[in-house]
Amino acid sequence: MARDPSRVETFSDGIFAVVLTVMAVELLQYGPARAGGRELPDALAHAWPSYLAYVITFGIAGQIWLGHHNMWRYVVRVDQVLLVFNLLLLLFVAAIPFTADLLSDNLRGSAAEQRLTAALYVGTVLGESLFFNLSWWWARRHRLLHPDLDPRLARAVARRLLLRPPLYLIAFAFVFVDPILSLLLYLLLVGLSLIRRPGDLPRFSAEAGGEVSDRGR
Amino acid sequence: MARDPSRVETFSDGIFAVVLTVMAVELLQYGPARAGGRELPDALAHAWPSYLAYVITFGIAGQIWLGHHNMWRYVVRVDQVLLVFNLLLLLFVAAIPFTADLLSDNLRGSAAEQRLTAALYVGTVLGESLFFNLSWWWARRHRLLHPDLDPRLARAVARRLLLRPPLYLIAFAFVFVDPILSLLLYLLLVGLSLIRRPGDLPRFSAEAGGEVSDRGR
Amino acid sequence: MARDPSRVETFSDGIFAVVLTVMAVELLQYGPARAGGRELPDALAHAWPSYLAYVITFGIAGQIWLGHHNMWRYVVRVDQVLLVFNLLLLLFVAAIPFTADLLSDNLRGSAAEQRLTAALYVGTVLGESLFFNLSWWWARRHRLLHPDLDPRLARAVARRLLLRPPLYLIAFAFVFVDPILSLLLYLLLVGLSLIRRPGDLPRFSAEAGGEVSDRGR
Amino acid sequence: MARDPSRVETFSDGIFAVVLTVMAVELLQYGPARAGGRELPDALAHAWPSYLAYVITFGIAGQIWLGHHNMWRYVVRVDQVLLVFNLLLLLFVAAIPFTADLLSDNLRGSAAEQRLTAALYVGTVLGESLFFNLSWWWARRHRLLHPDLDPRLARAVARRLLLRPPLYLIAFAFVFVDPILSLLLYLLLVGLSLIRRPGDLPRFSAEAGGEVSDRGR
Repeated sequence: MARDPSRVETFSDGIFAVVLTVMAVELLQYGPARAGGRELPDALAHAWPSYLAYVITFGIAGQIWLGHHNMWRYVVRVDQVLLVFNLLLLLFVAAIPFTADLLSDNLRGSAAEQRLTAALYVGTVLGESLFFNLSWWWARRHRLLHPDLDPRLARAVARRLLLRPPLYLIAFAFVFVDPILSLLLYLLLVGLSLIRRPGDLPRFSAEAGGEVSDRGR
Repeated sequence: MARDPSRVETFSDGIFAVVLTVMAVELLQYGPARAGGRELPDALAHAWPSYLAYVITFGIAGQIWLGHHNMWRYVVRVDQVLLVFNLLLLLFVAAIPFTADLLSDNLRGSAAEQRLTAALYVGTVLGESLFFNLSWWWARRHRLLHPDLDPRLARAVARRLLLRPPLYLIAFAFVFVDPILSLLLYLLLVGLSLIRRPGDLPRFSAEAGGEVSDRGR
Repeated sequence: MARDPSRVETFSDGIFAVVLTVMAVELLQYGPARAGGRELPDALAHAWPSYLAYVITFGIAGQIWLGHHNMWRYVVRVDQVLLVFNLLLLLFVAAIPFTADLLSDNLRGSAAEQRLTAALYVGTVLGESLFFNLSWWWARRHRLLHPDLDPRLARAVARRLLLRPPLYLIAFAFVFVDPILSLLLYLLLVGLSLIRRPGDLPRFSAEAGGEVSDRGR
Repeated sequence: MARDPSRVETFSDGIFAVVLTVMAVELLQYGPARAGGRELPDALAHAWPSYLAYVITFGIAGQIWLGHHNMWRYVVRVDQVLLVFNLLLLLFVAAIPFTADLLSDNLRGSAAEQRLTAALYVGTVLGESLFFNLSWWWARRHRLLHPDLDPRLARAVARRLLLRPPLYLIAFAFVFVDPILSLLLYLLLVGLSLIRRPGDLPRFSAEAGGEVSDRGR
């Protein structure tokens, strides 16, 4: 019965796998036979918003997967509330390809369309971020985390998670200046989140022989 | 060989992951380049039944996943019959996006269409509910459940599962009054099922140190 | 490193999950907004070959999953050849929705079309069956199976697997009599395979306390 | 917490499962009802580039899965960098169906189209190969591999992985001679990679009783 967290991970990973690949599947419609009379190089070049949407989706959802992976390593028990928070997190994650596709497609639209799609996009990542914060807060509060997890580390992670919604909102605000700049800021946030900082989840130390034996038996 | 139940969970989770994301994938066709000449805000607003179908599918299938998760925690052995019941359960679960899409799309159709699609929808959830009941009944009868599971708890779960089909039928009947009301009743049932009641599956107690060590090694 | 078989199972299950749900996803195109001017009941009734293809795919691929599940329970090691056989098995399994869709769609076509699609369909299941037989033969020959598996049981399973290709060919031959009859014979074979016979893989006995403790810890 | 590598495997397998099946899903659009007035045999024959793209994708992505499976068997710990390398590997893997579809579709196009699509295709497999090499290099350097792995074997694997990018480039170069020949060379490389050579990852020996007991308990 203590296996619960691993089933939640498997289930979430199934959804992440679909989200990460769906934009690549969408690309298939740009095959020449279906390009509607255009020349191939022209048809492929015209589809650039789809490639951009693929990369954005992969970047954002890949980063969320990394965070999910880092968080759930420490979860040793689940309850109904944590499962519901995780489902709601996934509800927003699964909508990312749709809003990322709208966002990148409308970089060649009017200013009003750019703002509308940027607002829809930021709504998705804010929703995801909200339930990420709630999951971590609930897991800490109800002692669902590994007892050896240093409480100061847990607090540092919570603080860092809290930082994300305002940063997303700042990136969104730049759509009123320049939509490309706004998009670059989102991708910069992804890049920054990959750099290790104090308060980051620790890397496994190479000396922890017990962990090796658990897998390597 | 005792790993069997975990493979059933992995397999079922793969199907749940597709079911939960497929409506989000469908949304991709409402991107502006494919909206057929409409203005973007108009095209997006016109697609509201798809957003509704996404939320209904996520709500209903997410709730079924929670129930499946709670039930299979207690399954320690599987036999051929339980696997077949589980496959038939998944046959109906995989049809939910189709019927939920029809249901929400026809809220703007005629009364006859609303009733037809509501009947198809309730058929799917009744089928799913039937095989959920049969799975639990068979697992109890053939001692496939964990020996430490309190028989009174197992009985309480069985009673609760039995309640679901009539409740679904009542929600369906309201389509003859108002289809929106009928839909709200379905979503209310999802909400109610998330609240813990006597007879509910217990939360892991924070004191169960043995379980922690199983994962936290 | 002894975990290998479980990764093969996870990977195969991902493919099975897509195969089982893809026909349900295809159904989504029959939503009323996309039915091209037909009345809803008429549009839904006209789509019956798709429902049939969904049920056939679920039946056939579900049965293959059951067989895969039963076989891989006994696999304790993998080698490169077994992995390649498994990949080739999956290559044919993933083509089942396509040929099942063609088969059911052409029940309303000409006799020549019925025979062509029936031949394509039987080709897929024969290919799948071939690599199932090869997998079991290779695993037995190279001692990749659990050492406690009774050799007589392993032989009985091999004999039973060998029976499947000729039975499929007989079901196929009936397409020259009546294509509906041929289809019913396929589904009858699925039904028969679910019934336990001597030589079937054993059900877990309720007395095997050691297995319970492995999961129920 | 030592379970990390297994979650990375599950997640990657979800993506591999989608990649391997997506071309089979695409085939569904060639069903007769959607073939646009053509005769069935003609419509099916006309779709040969899609069958080819399915087989190429399955061959290439199946081989990558085998390599991923063989590599990750030896990974006992993960860090942030290895996870990011794995995500970038998957970014290129998920694009393979798109470029394989373009490649096979343009075998009946002009020479310029053949070269363009061959260049896009080789770009995908080079990207995948780059991050495969980086993953193995990083895992060796930061002692994320099983301590019992023979360093000479690890080095031999690294040398073999390094061989792949130049071989891919040679196969690509043949597109200027004959695009069919270039394609056959790619498939030959897949075939060669399945043959065991010195420096290959070892097969599990049948004598290693300890491994048996880990799974067979």
